[in-house]
Amino acid sequence: MIRGVLLDLAGVIYEGDRALPGAIDAVARLHQAGLPLRFVTNTTRRTKRELLERLTRLGLDISADELFTPGQAARDWLKERDCMPVLVVHPNLEREFEDIPAREKHAVVVGDAGNAFDYAHLNRAFRELIGGAELIALAKNRTFKDDDGKLSLDAGAFVTALEYASGKTATVLGKPAHAFFAAALSSMHCPPEDAVMVGDDAEADVAGALRARLGHALLVRTGKYRPGDEDRFTPKPTATVSDLAAAADWILDCRS
Amino acid sequence: MIRGVLLDLAGVIYEGDRALPGAIDAVARLHQAGLPLRFVTNTTRRTKRELLERLTRLGLDISADELFTPGQAARDWLKERDCMPVLVVHPNLEREFEDIPAREKHAVVVGDAGNAFDYAHLNRAFRELIGGAELIALAKNRTFKDDDGKLSLDAGAFVTALEYASGKTATVLGKPAHAFFAAALSSMHCPPEDAVMVGDDAEADVAGALRARLGHALLVRTGKYRPGDEDRFTPKPTATVSDLAAAADWILDCRS
Repeated sequence: MIRGVLLDLAGVIYEGDRALPGAIDAVARLHQAGLPLRFVTNTTRRTKRELLERLTRLGLDISADELFTPGQAARDWLKERDCMPVLVVHPNLEREFEDIPAREKHAVVVGDAGNAFDYAHLNRAFRELIGGAELIALAKNRTFKDDDGKLSLDAGAFVTALEYASGKTATVLGKPAHAFFAAALSSMHCPPEDAVMVGDDAEADVAGALRARLGHALLVRTGKYRPGDEDRFTPKPTATVSDLAAAADWILDCRS
Repeated sequence: MIRGVLLDLAGVIYEGDRALPGAIDAVARLHQAGLPLRFVTNTTRRTKRELLERLTRLGLDISADELFTPGQAARDWLKERDCMPVLVVHPNLEREFEDIPAREKHAVVVGDAGNAFDYAHLNRAFRELIGGAELIALAKNRTFKDDDGKLSLDAGAFVTALEYASGKTATVLGKPAHAFFAAALSSMHCPPEDAVMVGDDAEADVAGALRARLGHALLVRTGKYRPGDEDRFTPKPTATVSDLAAAADWILDCRS
């Protein structure tokens, strides 16, 4: 039985500034069937507030409680540990952390920084790490589908670079962290085995969800999907479908 | 019996623009004892010619045949395979490759690029890799001792980043590649078991030389050495000594 749905955003709901064909309608059909939905993204180039505004513009009017971002998870993580962040993130995301006061304990926080991934930023972060700071990865994705339609380097490459040089292991806060999936599921009182995740990243979305003991995970052939992705990571997807519309059909078939 | 000596450069012979105390004298003593020497460096911020000029200025007048650099190894590698390089290297090193003509087969060549490690360069290299190019690491060192005396990120961090995102494994041409040690040893007709390597990098210099079956490898406590390095990698150094002068004492004691 499926009692809750987790949806990735980029590459599943939208690409760039446009909704993917059939995606908004698929979300409406899931809603109409009475299925609770949560949106879990590893996107770290925008604040949570900007992501919500973008979804509203696309016709998805969801509340802040329905959207889970690694930036928010990092704010919570830093707060609980009285840590201040040393940021290697996109300039857009810096606002997410601007109200955190200076503190003695430091944590290097790495997101998809884009052009801010330069030697000076990375070397400053490396020196913080060998000086005692913890390493926090908002996400460890390898690639993302860029505005030109091609794959580009995602945060994971740079997290790995810092791990290699410092000898530290990053704590990943976004997908596939179990706690990230668990927070979204718990907000809709859905046990993991009754949930399904839909994503275009066979590693962080699909294998990650299944490792976090979700009952089902669907890989869509949109976004960053490339042929063969379904066989590249384990566990393999419950099913691979063409897009979110087909994923909604799969989910609704399961319930009927 | 020791019949040949391999010496690292940065952190062993010199630091910045100055010879380390006792280093030039130590080289002279090894020479006077009739021991053949070769210099094997992973430095990739200068061409081989510029390195030779720097050594001359420091009072070490050696010939091109006595110095082994990853840049030279890369030139040979590309030539043998009819490949053209896509460079992620320091601007100073680009000259080393400027006469290689355009060819159909591409290889991404990564050195210690310093500030040229920016997102645009790295993403261009990543796209070449997923388009079919091979990945060549001039070196995979984690850190180096920077001009300000602190450790900084070395090429290895960025090589690892590209490996992680592309799924490819780099071919390393500098230390600890067996072929790199072997080329230096063969040029002085010295079997590996009769050779000693002296370096400040416990991983690439010391563990690397012992894995390449050299009889001995000495770790010096100069350059990038940090307390505990002798226990950080296996195989462990044959001995850990204060500097190149002490290493020369150790080697000459072995022969007496």
